[in-house]
Amino acid sequence: MSHNTFGHLFRMTTFGESHGPAMGCVVDGCPPGIKLSVDDIQGYLDKRRPGQSRFTTQRQEPDAVKILSGVFQDDRTDGQVTTGTPIMLMIENVDQRSKDYTEIRDKFRPGHADLTYQAKYGLRDYRGGGRSSARETAARVAAGAVARKVIPGVTIRAALVQMGAHKVDYKNWDWAEVHNNPFFSPDAKAAAQWEEYLDGVRKAGSSCGAVVEVTASGVPAGWGAPVYGKLDQDLAAAMMSINAVKGVEIGAGFAAAAFSGEQNADEIRMRHGKPEFLSNHAGGILGGISSGQDIVVRMAVKPTSSILTSRQTITAQGTNTDISTKGRHDPCVGIRAVPVAEAMMALVLADHFLRHRAQVG
Amino acid sequence: MSHNTFGHLFRMTTFGESHGPAMGCVVDGCPPGIKLSVDDIQGYLDKRRPGQSRFTTQRQEPDAVKILSGVFQDDRTDGQVTTGTPIMLMIENVDQRSKDYTEIRDKFRPGHADLTYQAKYGLRDYRGGGRSSARETAARVAAGAVARKVIPGVTIRAALVQMGAHKVDYKNWDWAEVHNNPFFSPDAKAAAQWEEYLDGVRKAGSSCGAVVEVTASGVPAGWGAPVYGKLDQDLAAAMMSINAVKGVEIGAGFAAAAFSGEQNADEIRMRHGKPEFLSNHAGGILGGISSGQDIVVRMAVKPTSSILTSRQTITAQGTNTDISTKGRHDPCVGIRAVPVAEAMMALVLADHFLRHRAQVG
Amino acid sequence: MSHNTFGHLFRMTTFGESHGPAMGCVVDGCPPGIKLSVDDIQGYLDKRRPGQSRFTTQRQEPDAVKILSGVFQDDRTDGQVTTGTPIMLMIENVDQRSKDYTEIRDKFRPGHADLTYQAKYGLRDYRGGGRSSARETAARVAAGAVARKVIPGVTIRAALVQMGAHKVDYKNWDWAEVHNNPFFSPDAKAAAQWEEYLDGVRKAGSSCGAVVEVTASGVPAGWGAPVYGKLDQDLAAAMMSINAVKGVEIGAGFAAAAFSGEQNADEIRMRHGKPEFLSNHAGGILGGISSGQDIVVRMAVKPTSSILTSRQTITAQGTNTDISTKGRHDPCVGIRAVPVAEAMMALVLADHFLRHRAQVG
Amino acid sequence: MSHNTFGHLFRMTTFGESHGPAMGCVVDGCPPGIKLSVDDIQGYLDKRRPGQSRFTTQRQEPDAVKILSGVFQDDRTDGQVTTGTPIMLMIENVDQRSKDYTEIRDKFRPGHADLTYQAKYGLRDYRGGGRSSARETAARVAAGAVARKVIPGVTIRAALVQMGAHKVDYKNWDWAEVHNNPFFSPDAKAAAQWEEYLDGVRKAGSSCGAVVEVTASGVPAGWGAPVYGKLDQDLAAAMMSINAVKGVEIGAGFAAAAFSGEQNADEIRMRHGKPEFLSNHAGGILGGISSGQDIVVRMAVKPTSSILTSRQTITAQGTNTDISTKGRHDPCVGIRAVPVAEAMMALVLADHFLRHRAQVG
Repeated sequence: MSHNTFGHLFRMTTFGESHGPAMGCVVDGCPPGIKLSVDDIQGYLDKRRPGQSRFTTQRQEPDAVKILSGVFQDDRTDGQVTTGTPIMLMIENVDQRSKDYTEIRDKFRPGHADLTYQAKYGLRDYRGGGRSSARETAARVAAGAVARKVIPGVTIRAALVQMGAHKVDYKNWDWAEVHNNPFFSPDAKAAAQWEEYLDGVRKAGSSCGAVVEVTASGVPAGWGAPVYGKLDQDLAAAMMSINAVKGVEIGAGFAAAAFSGEQNADEIRMRHGKPEFLSNHAGGILGGISSGQDIVVRMAVKPTSSILTSRQTITAQGTNTDISTKGRHDPCVGIRAVPVAEAMMALVLADHFLRHRAQVG
Repeated sequence: MSHNTFGHLFRMTTFGESHGPAMGCVVDGCPPGIKLSVDDIQGYLDKRRPGQSRFTTQRQEPDAVKILSGVFQDDRTDGQVTTGTPIMLMIENVDQRSKDYTEIRDKFRPGHADLTYQAKYGLRDYRGGGRSSARETAARVAAGAVARKVIPGVTIRAALVQMGAHKVDYKNWDWAEVHNNPFFSPDAKAAAQWEEYLDGVRKAGSSCGAVVEVTASGVPAGWGAPVYGKLDQDLAAAMMSINAVKGVEIGAGFAAAAFSGEQNADEIRMRHGKPEFLSNHAGGILGGISSGQDIVVRMAVKPTSSILTSRQTITAQGTNTDISTKGRHDPCVGIRAVPVAEAMMALVLADHFLRHRAQVG
Repeated sequence: MSHNTFGHLFRMTTFGESHGPAMGCVVDGCPPGIKLSVDDIQGYLDKRRPGQSRFTTQRQEPDAVKILSGVFQDDRTDGQVTTGTPIMLMIENVDQRSKDYTEIRDKFRPGHADLTYQAKYGLRDYRGGGRSSARETAARVAAGAVARKVIPGVTIRAALVQMGAHKVDYKNWDWAEVHNNPFFSPDAKAAAQWEEYLDGVRKAGSSCGAVVEVTASGVPAGWGAPVYGKLDQDLAAAMMSINAVKGVEIGAGFAAAAFSGEQNADEIRMRHGKPEFLSNHAGGILGGISSGQDIVVRMAVKPTSSILTSRQTITAQGTNTDISTKGRHDPCVGIRAVPVAEAMMALVLADHFLRHRAQVG
Repeated sequence: MSHNTFGHLFRMTTFGESHGPAMGCVVDGCPPGIKLSVDDIQGYLDKRRPGQSRFTTQRQEPDAVKILSGVFQDDRTDGQVTTGTPIMLMIENVDQRSKDYTEIRDKFRPGHADLTYQAKYGLRDYRGGGRSSARETAARVAAGAVARKVIPGVTIRAALVQMGAHKVDYKNWDWAEVHNNPFFSPDAKAAAQWEEYLDGVRKAGSSCGAVVEVTASGVPAGWGAPVYGKLDQDLAAAMMSINAVKGVEIGAGFAAAAFSGEQNADEIRMRHGKPEFLSNHAGGILGGISSGQDIVVRMAVKPTSSILTSRQTITAQGTNTDISTKGRHDPCVGIRAVPVAEAMMALVLADHFLRHRAQVG
């Protein structure tokens, strides 16, 4: 059991604080012989990197990853490959701006983990949120890039499907659109509306929530396991472990509660010699095991807790006070959660691929 | 890593199939010296037991639990106590009605795990769903009763808050009402409406979904851990591992996506020398760690997949066919999921209590 | 982490006390489709069963195993097979002779776990040693029988190679001899000497130690892993977890300390297209990974602590006293440890087979 | 399950190859509020560091450790303390001498893990042994230094008690002597003999084995657990995971096999209000749980496999050849295993301290 490790056979152990010298992770259990270079990882980190538009925090971090172990370039082989030993990925922190931490040291910011870390540990590294900072998700994205290479037949894609109360129109869905706007919106029309909306939020010093949808195509039927090794159970844990996530659903999710049995259970027909489902309310998972359909997960991200408006709170010494949070923040953390959700999906699937192979061959 | 074990320090390993000789679990890691008798467990099992109203399956199972190990009655002490060694809880199956399994053997029932188990293992115990049957949750409820005794200061309660599209009115909430109706509804008015609604569903041979809400009061601030040992992460996994659950949310959950930062972040004030939050959108968890507020989790349960209406499917041999599922079924499995949700909450909290004590003392 | 679970992917969780109603285990992670019946298990249990000669305890336990879950006999297949779900193996206790436990309740027997269990838990089930009884090893033998079926190409055999100070002569080694004498001796001559020696020990109410050697043939090169997943590390843990074991060595073991580098490192030559080692000081493991040679492990078993001679001890209340242990005991517990050592070898190898398959395919 | 992680609650995950850019580890589960600086760690690393006498390899590595996360210096507290989050310890490799690896690339060195790594992974990082190098133990020593701070009441000390066939005389034992000679010998006389002996071994281009004894004083009764959480089981795994170790024993160990029950079971008397054992054949552990006596473990280290004498082997392509290993090597790796054995003892005990506290409080 480890509080900072995710996964069972394909495992990531992360370390590092927001304002410490470095962040990173050790990826253990990776199969040998997989080509892996910094280029395979950096692209995903760049998608999560702050400061790329006016809609994310202006902290400047290149998030340049180094591979410190677990790969080897034989003088007779073509390129660097994994050796089956731990892959250490390190990202140095660059822009840990020196500032006055007095206020944050002494006051618990509403919505943040300040009070709970203090209650648990009796102390906390308050610089930039320390270990509770979303900066930790850079390590996830790096590890997720390795995970993708373990399951090359699987395509993992995520998109923002709701910002504040504004949802995309699924009829407009275009995966190609996702990288044409600063919101990872699959709906160009929604993106245009969000731009205006988020500018308003940002200028008001406020923030908003979001919903992210992540999909995996190409997962064969049979991954996952009963009854505490369920694929959906692990996906729920994976997504809920991301900062600010407050809800997770698979397939139809909460909407299924209002369905009748006839509406909900996906009918099956043979097509081209393979089972095909006539709908996907199950989100690709039945009894905790993949059905061969697309795996579809959605997660709700709460609004950034750091806002300009003054809020009631208490000091670490237990007196009433108020606080407003200035400085660099994402007005909608859901945006940068999109590549993180993809990474967590990849990590869960790579793990379950190995788990399935272990038991069934 | 174990597919049939839940928990890290307070652990439950379950075994058994729906139509095998017995179900049960081994509870490991329980602290010593805790009074524990069959009476502490049986009451919770009775709440989950089938056949108690016309709204649940008519299978007749007494679900009588036996404690086969891990407790000891010293001749000088008052009653039987845990010894710190594995507690084996066994429930014999009584009503595994002999029937013709030919249809279920050869056809994959839509919405069930038939196809996926077959895809994974190349074979399956199709009698009553085998290991994928919700009957496995009896073992959870038994283990959950032990977990409650590990955290006596915590009160865990669950209720059905939505049946089909019909929600309770939170203004009518009365915990005392929950055991006055066959639906675990906290709202007497909603219960009356549901009775009529579910009778219609049942007579039509159909089924409906539901939403369950489970609450834990009395959890001190500080349980849980960053970043893959988060309390909400483990609760999400716990609930998503329950049969038919398709969504989980903490506190405001998906509604938080539409909140502004001002609305969402719970303000804090000192009251009676302790921090008190002025709202609980966080559901009692910040940064994965309990805040001292009530922990609030909701889960969406899909409609029972076994319905009378004929549905399109395929055979195990890959030909198109149709199926309708006769026999004993719950028209709304969400009802009997209520005591299961309580049990999973208890298991997660007992585990985190021990994990917290390990690291922090 | 579980105190009563052994293994990572092929896992056994045991439960039960010496004088409780039943002992047993849940085997999780077993591949599906393996033929498994009670007959596959009972033979190994019979080898470990007490009361088979005057050289083991006279407790009468049939040790009849039942399989309560995890297997299925399809009406179209030949025999019962594993389904990939937890296999529950139960052995009911029959001869928990009712007796007066007053002395054992109040005094700590030297060499036993009485004092340490009391120190840890503040109480203990003192009937027959409770959970610390070697009776727990029956569950290991049952699980080990399942493990053997997971690795059918591997032959696991153990023998007693030393009783008291009396060692076998390796020149006389004959595996066929092992089941011709009540000591599992591979050396008929040694067996004859031991018979006389152990009769003397037994009649004196004393006891003696032993050394067990266990060998696995047919393990392919490549099982095991660096650096905390080493095959020898897990074998050391497996053997040291057996009651009364005080030492474990692989290959040359402690003798290697006195070797020169030239003597120790096994030279290699190709034979019949495969690497062959010219000696096996490594015991079949290099860098924690199997080399394809026989895996050879030895373990030292201390003398039974229950002896007739009066010994100095203290009471649970902390006063000086004396104790001598009457009743049914093995004069040399090393004998019945032989099938247990085989079982632990099988469990470790089945686990590593799955672990290897997970990572490397 | 992780191949590169050691421990359950106090956990170390190591990474890095002998000739890669860096080695290190992530320590997870450490309690918060413990003072920890580089100075607490560096001293132990210096004891293990190569190149300190003519009796160890001449590779020049400063082994300077950096703490990259998990500690925090509050502006109001005295010194840097642990925060309860992962502690990343990094040691950069400095002296990865560039050399011609052709021979080692193409030939399997007898006694090394070359053949087995190749068999497992289909490739290997052959530079300096890659991940199989004893250089990995630097990370253990660093993590062990943190572990010691978690159990400040426990004193852990190790010594070399046998070099080649030459044993120390326990009557000469003096812990103060251990750091007065380059062998960690507690017996000055033996150290003098070893000096001459090892000079001969070294000049001959040969190597020799050794036995290390490690002791922990101050461990209270009650740490450890039945039956697969035994303290001796975990110590056996810990020591066997160290490079070149081929045997582990607790207390009397293999000698206990030749004892009678009367000789072996340690008698007990009250002294100063506490239980005291009149001997310590058990090595401080009964039934897997500490008894309050000194914990005593010995491990056998095989001779360094790298020797000048030409030995028969095969190439990676499967043809017969010969090899002799030139370059920098320890003639007796047992010497530098002494601080490593201490570290592993510390890691096991810190883990069991937390495990005990979790279950029993």
